[in-house]
Amino acid sequence: MTATPDGHDEAMMRRALDLARRAASLGEVPVGAVVYETDSGRVLGEAFNRREQDRDPSAHAEFLAIREACRAVSDWRLNHCSLAVTLEPCPMCAGLIVNARVGRVVYGTDDPKAGAVRTLYALLNDDRLNHACAVVPGVLAEESAGLLRAFFRSLREK
Amino acid sequence: MTATPDGHDEAMMRRALDLARRAASLGEVPVGAVVYETDSGRVLGEAFNRREQDRDPSAHAEFLAIREACRAVSDWRLNHCSLAVTLEPCPMCAGLIVNARVGRVVYGTDDPKAGAVRTLYALLNDDRLNHACAVVPGVLAEESAGLLRAFFRSLREK
Repeated sequence: MTATPDGHDEAMMRRALDLARRAASLGEVPVGAVVYETDSGRVLGEAFNRREQDRDPSAHAEFLAIREACRAVSDWRLNHCSLAVTLEPCPMCAGLIVNARVGRVVYGTDDPKAGAVRTLYALLNDDRLNHACAVVPGVLAEESAGLLRAFFRSLREK
Repeated sequence: MTATPDGHDEAMMRRALDLARRAASLGEVPVGAVVYETDSGRVLGEAFNRREQDRDPSAHAEFLAIREACRAVSDWRLNHCSLAVTLEPCPMCAGLIVNARVGRVVYGTDDPKAGAVRTLYALLNDDRLNHACAVVPGVLAEESAGLLRAFFRSLREK
């Protein structure tokens, strides 16, 4: 189910892009994520990718933001929330989105290597799983893709 | 790629079953998991499902065990390790197994509702992703399935 951006989505994506820039400044692949209440826009969790710093294969931006939001509401269910993330989630993160019952997912650029929302898999819209959510792809996609391109170009030039 | 049980696999699955029983005693869905060095059998991480207690949608047994193992070796890569888990991993956990480059996965019973190793998806053997691993399904499967059946029966009788 593909939807269009709603009230808070673009502002939240700009916040996620700022987080992605902080990741890049620390030498991490630049991805940022924000979890917010869909109606109010209140932020419950936000993070950037910290895999290298934390030496933790689960430390993707959206994964950390969702866990922080669950702590904020003392529940593992986030049906009333939206997630804005600059890059299409991988299978691990899409699986967490299903497990946490996140209501909506707004994302920036597609991930041809591991995208599990519509590129390699469509995990968020599989009738066999026990949750499906609205998906808004392509929000500020060029800004997100530009950050990733610049990051990998700078790695190659080192 | 399906393989057969190796030296330490059955002992590790018995340990994972003991962990699953501890989960059940706390009212959690009984799933247990152990991460061990494939050659030596040295245990690097072990856990049982703690989703309700932790109010954390990522607190599946194998997820916690893998993160513990990464902390033990100070690395996000576990190519030299095997994971024994009593239930077929879900998409989130299979995604983490790929992201953490776990070398081998030994599991007990198939999960018809969310299994992402061979039931609904085959995430551990997808050439498009950047890691594939050996899979040993069905190890002590009846014991694992029996624990799950007894747990859900006791819930219905409450």
